[in-house]
Amino acid sequence: MGLLVVGSLGLDTVATPFDRVENALGGSAVYISLAASYFSGPIYLVGVVGEDFPKKYIKLLENHNIDLEGLQIVQGGKTFRWSGKYHYDLNVRDTLLTELNVFEEFNPIIPDKFKKSKFVCLGNIDPTLQIKVLDQMENPQFVVCDTMNYWIEGKMDALSVLLKRVNVLIINDSEARLLAKEANLIKASKKIRDMGPEILIIKKGEHGALLFADDMVFSAPAYPMEMIYDPTGAGDSFAGGFTGYLHKTQDLSHENMKRAVIYGSAMASFCVEKFSTKGLEDLEYLRVHDRYREFLDLSRFDDK
Amino acid sequence: MGLLVVGSLGLDTVATPFDRVENALGGSAVYISLAASYFSGPIYLVGVVGEDFPKKYIKLLENHNIDLEGLQIVQGGKTFRWSGKYHYDLNVRDTLLTELNVFEEFNPIIPDKFKKSKFVCLGNIDPTLQIKVLDQMENPQFVVCDTMNYWIEGKMDALSVLLKRVNVLIINDSEARLLAKEANLIKASKKIRDMGPEILIIKKGEHGALLFADDMVFSAPAYPMEMIYDPTGAGDSFAGGFTGYLHKTQDLSHENMKRAVIYGSAMASFCVEKFSTKGLEDLEYLRVHDRYREFLDLSRFDDK
Repeated sequence: MGLLVVGSLGLDTVATPFDRVENALGGSAVYISLAASYFSGPIYLVGVVGEDFPKKYIKLLENHNIDLEGLQIVQGGKTFRWSGKYHYDLNVRDTLLTELNVFEEFNPIIPDKFKKSKFVCLGNIDPTLQIKVLDQMENPQFVVCDTMNYWIEGKMDALSVLLKRVNVLIINDSEARLLAKEANLIKASKKIRDMGPEILIIKKGEHGALLFADDMVFSAPAYPMEMIYDPTGAGDSFAGGFTGYLHKTQDLSHENMKRAVIYGSAMASFCVEKFSTKGLEDLEYLRVHDRYREFLDLSRFDDK
Repeated sequence: MGLLVVGSLGLDTVATPFDRVENALGGSAVYISLAASYFSGPIYLVGVVGEDFPKKYIKLLENHNIDLEGLQIVQGGKTFRWSGKYHYDLNVRDTLLTELNVFEEFNPIIPDKFKKSKFVCLGNIDPTLQIKVLDQMENPQFVVCDTMNYWIEGKMDALSVLLKRVNVLIINDSEARLLAKEANLIKASKKIRDMGPEILIIKKGEHGALLFADDMVFSAPAYPMEMIYDPTGAGDSFAGGFTGYLHKTQDLSHENMKRAVIYGSAMASFCVEKFSTKGLEDLEYLRVHDRYREFLDLSRFDDK
C-alpha cells in the first residue's frame, strides 16, 4: 500500500547569497515525496499544477516511483509560483512573490486506489484542505501533518479540528511557540500535544529537532554543515524522510520513531546541500544510511 | 594535585520574571569551583573580594573542599557587584549595574602550593590577567579558558596571545561568531581552532553544546527544562563540571571529553534550577550521575 502525500507543487524562484534559480521545481508535496521515495514506494501524490508545469518535472517525479494519478493538471491554468530571497545567515528569508494560481481553487480529490492508504503525510496547505483529505480516506492509521504560522494565525478553528485527527505534528520552534502561546518549548510541547497529536516534532534548523511523546523527549542533533546552498524544502524533506522510513519499517514504536527523526534530519541535510530539489534527485540508499551513521557518531557518548 | 580555578567572586543582585535576590553569591570562579567540587578536589581558587564579603560564603566554599589560600581579601575594599534583569524568555538580560570595586586592581598571585597544578580553569576575566596566571604556573598541562564579547571586542591582542596557550576554549555561539567573524558555526570553529585551542566548545543555551576537535564534532543535547529560575552562572557551571570531570578521570581522550561535556551540561542544568548558587550547593554525586544518564536517554538512538 502506498504512502499518501498531499501538498503543493510549485515553480520556485530562489536567491541566496551564493546563487539564484528561476522556476525550479518546488512545493511541499514535491519535497516530501522525493525524500520519502528513498525509503518506500509507491508514493501516492495528490496535488494540482497548471498546464505550464514542465513535462521534465512530471518525468522526474515518476522516475522516483511517485504515482501521479492524484495530480490534477488544470488546462489553461498556471502553476503555483513562489519567489524568495535568503539573507547571509540563511535563517531569514523574504518572500518576494506568492502567486497561488491553480492552487487558489484546489480541491483535493483522492483517487479510489489511494483511499486505502494507512500512512498519510499532509504537507503544509490550508488546514481545511487537509481535513478534506482525511475525510476521503477509508481508515488512515498514521497521519503526519505540517502547518505554518500563516494558518496558526489565520485558520486556528480549522487547525484545531485537524489536530485532533493527526498522530504526528511537525512544526518549527517559532511555530510551536506561536501555537502554544508559550516561550518554553518543553511547556509548549505539552500544550500542543493536549490539542491532539500524540507525537510532536519541533524542528530547530541548525540546532536539530526535538521529538515529544508520552514520557519521552528525544533530542536529535543537526548535521554540521559548512555550506547551506538553499534552505528551501528542508522541513518538507524532513517530513518525507520521517514518514517514508516509518512507512517502510511499519514500526511505530518510540525507538523506531527516533530513528525516523534521524532519517528525516538526514534527508533535510541532503536537501539543503544543493539548490531546489537537486539534493534529493540522485541519492542512493547507501548514502542515506551512511549519513544516518554520521548522525550516530555525532551524538553518541557512552554510559560511564 | 588540585585543580586551579581563577575568576571573579561577586555579590549579585538578580531579577527574573519569577523572583529576585540581592547580594547573592556569584562570580565565575565561584560557579566553576562549586560545579567542579562534585568531581574532584581540592579546588585551588584564586580571586579577590572585599572586607564586606560575607563569612558565610567563605564557609560555604570551604565546605566544598575549595582551598582559599589564593583568595585575596582586601581590607577596606568592596566586593565586585553585578546586577542584572532577565526578560520573559530568559535569553535576554539587561545588565543594570557593574561595580568592579576590588576587582579593578586585581593582580592574581598564585600561591606556591598551587603553581604545580596540571589542570587550570581560567574563568571569564580580562585576558591580560588570564595570561598573568599562566605565567606563574610551573607546567600546566591542560588549560581551559572562558571569555566573552567584551574582551573579544576590546582586548583582542591579549586574547590572541592567550589563545595560543590554552587547550580548550569554551564560549557561546554569539561569541564564537564574533571571534571568528563568521556566521556559520562549523566554519567558525575551524577559524577559532586555528587561533590556538585544540578543542573548542560552543555553548548554545537551550540548544545544547558543540565540541570540536581534530576530525571530530560532538553534539550534546540540552536538558529539557520547563522552568529556568535563574540563568546566571550556567556557562561557568558548565566549565566547572567539564574541567572537574576531566581532572577527576585524568583522561583527555576525545571519548572522555564527550562525557565531560555532558557532565558540564548536567551541572549547568542544576545551576539554573535555583537562584544564584543554590542549585550547586547541596548536590550528591549520585544525582549528578543520574542526570548524566538522563542525557543518555535523551539523545540515544541505535544503529539500524
